[in-house]
Amino acid sequence: MTTPADARYRARGVSSAKEDVHQAIAHLDAGLFPGAFCKVLPDLLSGDPESCLVLHADGAGTKSSLAYLAWRESGDVGVWKGIAQDSLVMNLDDCACAGAIGPYLVSNTIGRNAKRIPGEVIAAIIAGYGEVCASLEAEGITCHLAGGETADVGDLVRTVIVDSTIACRLPRREVIDASRMAAGDVIIGFSSTGRARWEGVDNAGIGSNGLTGARHELLAKHYAQSYPESHAPEIDPDFVYSGPYRLQDPLPDSSMSIGQALLSPTRTYVPLIRDLIDALGVERIHGLIHASGGAHAKIGKFGHGKRYILDALPPPPPLFRAIQAAAQVDWREMYTVYNCGVRLLAVVPEACAQACLDAAKAAQIDSWVVGRVEDATAGAANSVHLQTAFGDFSY
Amino acid sequence: MTTPADARYRARGVSSAKEDVHQAIAHLDAGLFPGAFCKVLPDLLSGDPESCLVLHADGAGTKSSLAYLAWRESGDVGVWKGIAQDSLVMNLDDCACAGAIGPYLVSNTIGRNAKRIPGEVIAAIIAGYGEVCASLEAEGITCHLAGGETADVGDLVRTVIVDSTIACRLPRREVIDASRMAAGDVIIGFSSTGRARWEGVDNAGIGSNGLTGARHELLAKHYAQSYPESHAPEIDPDFVYSGPYRLQDPLPDSSMSIGQALLSPTRTYVPLIRDLIDALGVERIHGLIHASGGAHAKIGKFGHGKRYILDALPPPPPLFRAIQAAAQVDWREMYTVYNCGVRLLAVVPEACAQACLDAAKAAQIDSWVVGRVEDATAGAANSVHLQTAFGDFSY
Repeated sequence: MTTPADARYRARGVSSAKEDVHQAIAHLDAGLFPGAFCKVLPDLLSGDPESCLVLHADGAGTKSSLAYLAWRESGDVGVWKGIAQDSLVMNLDDCACAGAIGPYLVSNTIGRNAKRIPGEVIAAIIAGYGEVCASLEAEGITCHLAGGETADVGDLVRTVIVDSTIACRLPRREVIDASRMAAGDVIIGFSSTGRARWEGVDNAGIGSNGLTGARHELLAKHYAQSYPESHAPEIDPDFVYSGPYRLQDPLPDSSMSIGQALLSPTRTYVPLIRDLIDALGVERIHGLIHASGGAHAKIGKFGHGKRYILDALPPPPPLFRAIQAAAQVDWREMYTVYNCGVRLLAVVPEACAQACLDAAKAAQIDSWVVGRVEDATAGAANSVHLQTAFGDFSY
Repeated sequence: MTTPADARYRARGVSSAKEDVHQAIAHLDAGLFPGAFCKVLPDLLSGDPESCLVLHADGAGTKSSLAYLAWRESGDVGVWKGIAQDSLVMNLDDCACAGAIGPYLVSNTIGRNAKRIPGEVIAAIIAGYGEVCASLEAEGITCHLAGGETADVGDLVRTVIVDSTIACRLPRREVIDASRMAAGDVIIGFSSTGRARWEGVDNAGIGSNGLTGARHELLAKHYAQSYPESHAPEIDPDFVYSGPYRLQDPLPDSSMSIGQALLSPTRTYVPLIRDLIDALGVERIHGLIHASGGAHAKIGKFGHGKRYILDALPPPPPLFRAIQAAAQVDWREMYTVYNCGVRLLAVVPEACAQACLDAAKAAQIDSWVVGRVEDATAGAANSVHLQTAFGDFSY
C-alpha cells in the first residue's frame, strides 16, 4: 500500500501532531519558563520563590498492546516490566530536558480490563517500576514510588493502559530554558540504540513513540485474527496488522527478533543529562530536546527565529529501516514520528561539543555532532532542516 | 436475574475488593502514617523534616462511558465537564481525608480513541477542570492545573479514560491519622445528595464508584445495540445494559432523570473538611473516611481492634434504591459498593459532634450522627456493623 503517511496515521486514529488537542489546551498558562522543554511551575507547594516544580504526566501508550501480544504468545509476564519503564522514562526524560534530574516522586495510574489482565501482570508492571528506580539509584538518581491506582475499567480499556505522573522540584536557576538556543550552537545527538552503562541488554531504540504505526506496519494479520482485543475495531481492516512479520521473526540486519526490538524499553538519558550538567554547568546547556512525539521536527517548537540544521544524523538503525520498508512511507514522515536512532539532542556552544561527546562515551552511548543552529531571516518562524541519505526535508 | 452480587460484579470485570491488585502492591512501603486515609510521604522534594507530601492518583473510571452515552444521545458536550470533576474530586477528597486541604497541584492523563472522541470533548473536559478549580478557589481552596497529557490510544481505549494525579504538601503535625479513632468516638455522616454551598445544581449522590454496575443495572439494551463501544465485549450479554431505563426516563421519587442522576458530578467535601479542621483543630478529628471504593465497609480498613457501629445511616436516596431494585442485589452488597447517600464520615469525640453538624449546616450539607466506635474484644480484628431498615450487616 502506498497511502500517504498522514492518511495512514489517521486511519489508525493517531496523529503525531494532535492539532485538536493542542487547540483544546492552547489557552492554558505556559508556566514560569515557556521556553523550557516541559512546563515549569512556581513552587506552589512550599512557596519558596527560588524554587520551582515540575508535575508531568505521560505513559507507555499503545506499546502495552504490543506487550499484550508478546505476553499472550509467550506466556512470559516479564515483557510487562518494560512497559513500566516506558511509562516512567517518557516522564523522566521530558523533565530532565528542563533540568529536573531528581529526586523524582512517581505515581502511576493503571487501567485494566480484568477479563484480560490478571493480577500477575499488574504485579509485573509494578515490579518493573521498582527495577527502573533501583537501576537509577545505582547511577545516583533518586526516583521514589509514591503509589498509584489500578482501576478495573474493562468498559473503557481493551487490555491495559499504563500512565505515570512524576513530580520534581529544582532551583529556578537550574532550569534549562531551551529558548537560550543560539546561532552558532552545535547540536549533539545521542544514540537511542546499543547498551548504555545502566542497561543490561541491547536496545533497538524505538522508545514509546510511533508504536501504533510500528506495530501495525510490521506485524502480520495473524495478530488481528488471534487478538482482536489488541486494536481499535474502528480501524479500516486494510490498516490493521498489515505487515510481514511475526514477533519471533528476525529483524533484518540485527541479532534481535521483531518482538524484542519493538519491545525494547525506552532508554532513560537521565544519568547522561546529569553528567552533562556536571561537566558543562547548566548555563552552557542551551537546550535539551527529547525527540519523542514529533521526533526530529520537535526542536522547531523551541527557541525563536531559528533554523535548526540537522545534516549529520547517523544512519537509521535496523528497526527504523524495517518500519519504513514495511510502511513504504517517505523518510520525510519517518523523521517526524520516529527518533530514527537519536532520541536526545543537546544544543551547546561549539566549544562544549567535545565535553558532550566525552560524557556520552563514559555513559557508553554513541553520540555525534549532528547539526547546528542558525538565525532565521528577520521575522521568520523556526524551521528544521534535515539533510539525510534519503533526501533533504524541511519542517 | 438473581445472580449473587459478587458474581454480577465479576461478570462485568470489576470487583470492589480488587484482591489481586492489593496482593500485587502489598509489599510496597506504606509511607509515614500507615494509618492515614492515603499514603503520606516524607517531603522528598524539599527535604524539610517537618513537612510531608501526598502524591495521589485516581480517575473518573467508567463514568466516562456513561458520559459518552449521554453525549452521543444529546449532542451536549457539557456532560464531559462533570467527568473532569469526578476525576479530580476522587483525588481531592481522598487527600483531604488525610488532612491535605491544599494548595493542590493537578495533572491529568486522558487517553482517547480519536475515532470516537473529537477535540471538542477534550476541550470540555479540560474546561471542566478549570471550573472545578474556580469553584474551589471561591471557597478559599487552591487547586492549580499543572498540565497533563492527552494521548491517542484507540488500540487501548474504546472511548476515553480520564485520570488525575494531585500533589499536596502539608506540615506533618496536620496529618489526620485515622489510627487515632478511639472507642467512645461518634461517627458523623455527611450527605452525598442535595446542593452544597459551592454547588449550582442538586446532586444525586452517586460519586464515581460502582458506575459499571449502576450503568448496566439501570440502562436498557438499547445502549448495547446502539453503542457497543461503550462496554467490554467480554461481558456475558445477559449482564450488559440489563436494566429498565433510558437516560431521559425519570428517576422514581425524584425530579431528576436517570441520566442526570447517574452523571451527577462527584461532590467535593474539601471546603467542609477545611471548615471542620478550622472548627475542631486537627487533633480532635480522629478520622475522616471517604466512602469511595468499598463504601461503608471501608472504615474497617482503618484503626486497630475496633468495632465501627453504623446504626443510624439515613435512608438511601432515590438513585440507590433504583439501582438496588433493578439489580435485585442484597443491601448487604449495596452498602459495600455504593455510598448510599453518605460519602464522608468524620470520627470525633462525642463532645465535638455538634460542631460537625454545625459546620455541615453552614456548608448546606445534611449530616447525622450515624454511629460510634467501640473496642473489639481483645485480639479481634476491625469489624463494621450496619443496622439498617433492610437488615443488619457485618463486614
